[in-house]
Amino acid sequence: MRSIDLNSDVGEFSGQWVVGDDDAIFAHISSANVACGGHAGDPTIIRATCRAAAGQGVIVGAHPSYRDLAGFGRRFIDVPAVELADELIAQIGLLQALAHAEGTSVRYVKPHGALYNAIVSHRPHAQAVVDAIRAVDPAFPLVVPPFSEVQRRAEDAGVRTVVEAFADRAYTRDGGLVPRTEPDAVIHDSALVVERALRIVDGHVLAIDGTRIDIGAETLCLHGDTPGAVELSASIERALHEAGVETRSFVDR
Amino acid sequence: MRSIDLNSDVGEFSGQWVVGDDDAIFAHISSANVACGGHAGDPTIIRATCRAAAGQGVIVGAHPSYRDLAGFGRRFIDVPAVELADELIAQIGLLQALAHAEGTSVRYVKPHGALYNAIVSHRPHAQAVVDAIRAVDPAFPLVVPPFSEVQRRAEDAGVRTVVEAFADRAYTRDGGLVPRTEPDAVIHDSALVVERALRIVDGHVLAIDGTRIDIGAETLCLHGDTPGAVELSASIERALHEAGVETRSFVDR
Amino acid sequence: MRSIDLNSDVGEFSGQWVVGDDDAIFAHISSANVACGGHAGDPTIIRATCRAAAGQGVIVGAHPSYRDLAGFGRRFIDVPAVELADELIAQIGLLQALAHAEGTSVRYVKPHGALYNAIVSHRPHAQAVVDAIRAVDPAFPLVVPPFSEVQRRAEDAGVRTVVEAFADRAYTRDGGLVPRTEPDAVIHDSALVVERALRIVDGHVLAIDGTRIDIGAETLCLHGDTPGAVELSASIERALHEAGVETRSFVDR
Amino acid sequence: MRSIDLNSDVGEFSGQWVVGDDDAIFAHISSANVACGGHAGDPTIIRATCRAAAGQGVIVGAHPSYRDLAGFGRRFIDVPAVELADELIAQIGLLQALAHAEGTSVRYVKPHGALYNAIVSHRPHAQAVVDAIRAVDPAFPLVVPPFSEVQRRAEDAGVRTVVEAFADRAYTRDGGLVPRTEPDAVIHDSALVVERALRIVDGHVLAIDGTRIDIGAETLCLHGDTPGAVELSASIERALHEAGVETRSFVDR
Repeated sequence: MRSIDLNSDVGEFSGQWVVGDDDAIFAHISSANVACGGHAGDPTIIRATCRAAAGQGVIVGAHPSYRDLAGFGRRFIDVPAVELADELIAQIGLLQALAHAEGTSVRYVKPHGALYNAIVSHRPHAQAVVDAIRAVDPAFPLVVPPFSEVQRRAEDAGVRTVVEAFADRAYTRDGGLVPRTEPDAVIHDSALVVERALRIVDGHVLAIDGTRIDIGAETLCLHGDTPGAVELSASIERALHEAGVETRSFVDR
Repeated sequence: MRSIDLNSDVGEFSGQWVVGDDDAIFAHISSANVACGGHAGDPTIIRATCRAAAGQGVIVGAHPSYRDLAGFGRRFIDVPAVELADELIAQIGLLQALAHAEGTSVRYVKPHGALYNAIVSHRPHAQAVVDAIRAVDPAFPLVVPPFSEVQRRAEDAGVRTVVEAFADRAYTRDGGLVPRTEPDAVIHDSALVVERALRIVDGHVLAIDGTRIDIGAETLCLHGDTPGAVELSASIERALHEAGVETRSFVDR
Repeated sequence: MRSIDLNSDVGEFSGQWVVGDDDAIFAHISSANVACGGHAGDPTIIRATCRAAAGQGVIVGAHPSYRDLAGFGRRFIDVPAVELADELIAQIGLLQALAHAEGTSVRYVKPHGALYNAIVSHRPHAQAVVDAIRAVDPAFPLVVPPFSEVQRRAEDAGVRTVVEAFADRAYTRDGGLVPRTEPDAVIHDSALVVERALRIVDGHVLAIDGTRIDIGAETLCLHGDTPGAVELSASIERALHEAGVETRSFVDR
Repeated sequence: MRSIDLNSDVGEFSGQWVVGDDDAIFAHISSANVACGGHAGDPTIIRATCRAAAGQGVIVGAHPSYRDLAGFGRRFIDVPAVELADELIAQIGLLQALAHAEGTSVRYVKPHGALYNAIVSHRPHAQAVVDAIRAVDPAFPLVVPPFSEVQRRAEDAGVRTVVEAFADRAYTRDGGLVPRTEPDAVIHDSALVVERALRIVDGHVLAIDGTRIDIGAETLCLHGDTPGAVELSASIERALHEAGVETRSFVDR
């Protein structure tokens, strides 16, 4: 039976400030990328998010970031690679302890925001991510963009990589995401998004110029924090099930 | 053979700012209370501190604090107990991951500064400390002030407590520390400090009014961050050895 | 003609996180208490809030807090009074520069949250608030709770005080607010809230035991961040106008 | 009479952590670049630094930075220019209020660290610095590296620029600083540093390849935070006086 993982970024709150609708999205995902305090999340929010994930049988992953609460982790920071690795270890460790307090555990890592984008090509930061995982637990799978520097370095280091795809984002011919500043970067037509999700399960995406790109994604990212996002996620999940695709975490695959 | 643990607060730096002389103090202690980012310490400093401790065979303990980098953890913060417990779990977890990256591990917990003082009597915060330890690892010993609320609550919860004493601080008749705002709070005569250290090994301190107080301390706190502190620590360690007292961690006792 | 000021706390966002509906509340108030980065607000949010206030002809006041972004300024922090005064000066100064950049200026000060509650009785912190105002601009009016330590100290120091009242909060017999933990602390019946607002214009509130308390409030606090808050504010404003009460800032009175 | 300004970065402490020796350096400088909380400095430290500057008759300038306490402002942060401008306005405003509390005032701006380096060529960030000054006070002189993007943009915007030179740093042929990662980046021979300081007063530096570069510096940066720095500063000041060069601030020139 064909299968795919559905992941979403969760716990991206801070103190008084709540965005998105985590409770609704948990029903549709198999993997929860939990903010670790770098770009969002304080200990109480992180723990509550782990509790919710555990309660709904969703696998917990770490979603570490450049230390940038002020910028929600969306700013590239030219930090020395050694300090970045230490920062990521600290963020993952913090999440591990809070997950453990709720009877669950961290099972994988997916970098956030500007860091995720940087490690497509930034060699020292890509290596820092790999080094952090090896220091914490070399068995953790690492969610990566396809054809990326971080993917190559992880594989060289013996760290399992899990390619991620986005059903609602346009891809360039070389397998990169079309930047959000471009007009057609985000696909809003839900029927088209669902169709693209099914293609991803089959191993490929269509680039903006029509080229078929074999990206071999094992996980599909769903959004919980935009209008209509939960409905779209439900549609994707339903379409996958109707097509005989099982949605399950990649961790025990 | 009689024995006692010697502990010191280490890693209390941040970014550019370095105080004290950790390298020198490591030679004289058996337990290192490592700052966890609450009152001091960033991931790179914390990791370097764990590396130094591991290299010198010193046991690593967590030294969590109210979240108060601005005030070095010296300000009481009236935070809800649930949030305090989550904060402490996060700080300990962060240290666990960084210690692990250096091939060592966290073995005990000693609260810092205003939190340490508060839990002598503040019931919700004392309970929060105990709850945090139980959530992380109920086998962690907790370093406590004698005759304190936190000691009673830890024991009620089945958490091992380790009473701490200070050889250079005056004690009140009820076993509390004379506040630093009082003129005779700190004992500067090193011969007297050494004499008091030997008394502590024998299980008691003399209060400021001469009363003998049986506090049953298992660990003695040395300072690394004041002028002459390292020399005083060396003197205490030497005197203990000459008196046939072994200095070793309490964790495997 | 009778008049009263209507104030509301605004700009209480941070980064990604937005609460309440500032744009809607601006239409109903004469004074905007702008968060200064202590409990909420980053420079871009603060500046945008000043721009909105200026655009709608609303007077800008500083709404400084204990430094406590993690706790939204709702936690008492036992900070030395000297450091608190410096912190408040810094927060007000930061707001002054951003208000100036938008062609407006800070005209008064209203402390936030736990600080506002503390200075009802906490002498050093009440004095710190007064000292901060005197250091920044002794002509700034200070919004205060009635019968408070801070009111007495401000008046002793020659700082003008402006008593604030809440139409939707129950009062104790001595003029304090019934704590939110009590069942009847908040009045939800909007007709009753409007009636109480009119009483406040006449100079008094009815305590929870029916006692009439002359508090002589010059400003009435409206909320923008709770469900129905904007509608309630509109109702209060309309009722005041129908009763021939002008709503205008206290600053030029 | 020939003259030059001597400036130094001061107040670069945080909480417990103190580096350098500000009191000693104040005796040798005419302008103090005061940290504004972006890379170092909390309100109490900033205020104390303003007090010391005022007491010694030293002009106070703002030394704003990327928001990066963790990295001491030494990390480039790819923040949107609008947010950077707001951040700088907030930092300068905070300093203005604290300087005012000590009876002095901010008279100029010198960006710090990675920001200072970035605006040699980074157009949006260079413009953000200029925009911030225009928003706060268009009459503030801006201390800049020679031949820089920020210098051109400031001049285009009618903001006065003051070129800064370093007597102990090697220059490239095009007037840039040799990066600290290069072996000969820093000149340690104090006689040579003094000689270079005198050349700077005469309007030029010698590049590492011997080329004479006319940089027309009006201010010379002295360091207070490295071993021997204060002695070197005293030597430079003495040599300047012996050569008949007056050391005075550029602000009223």
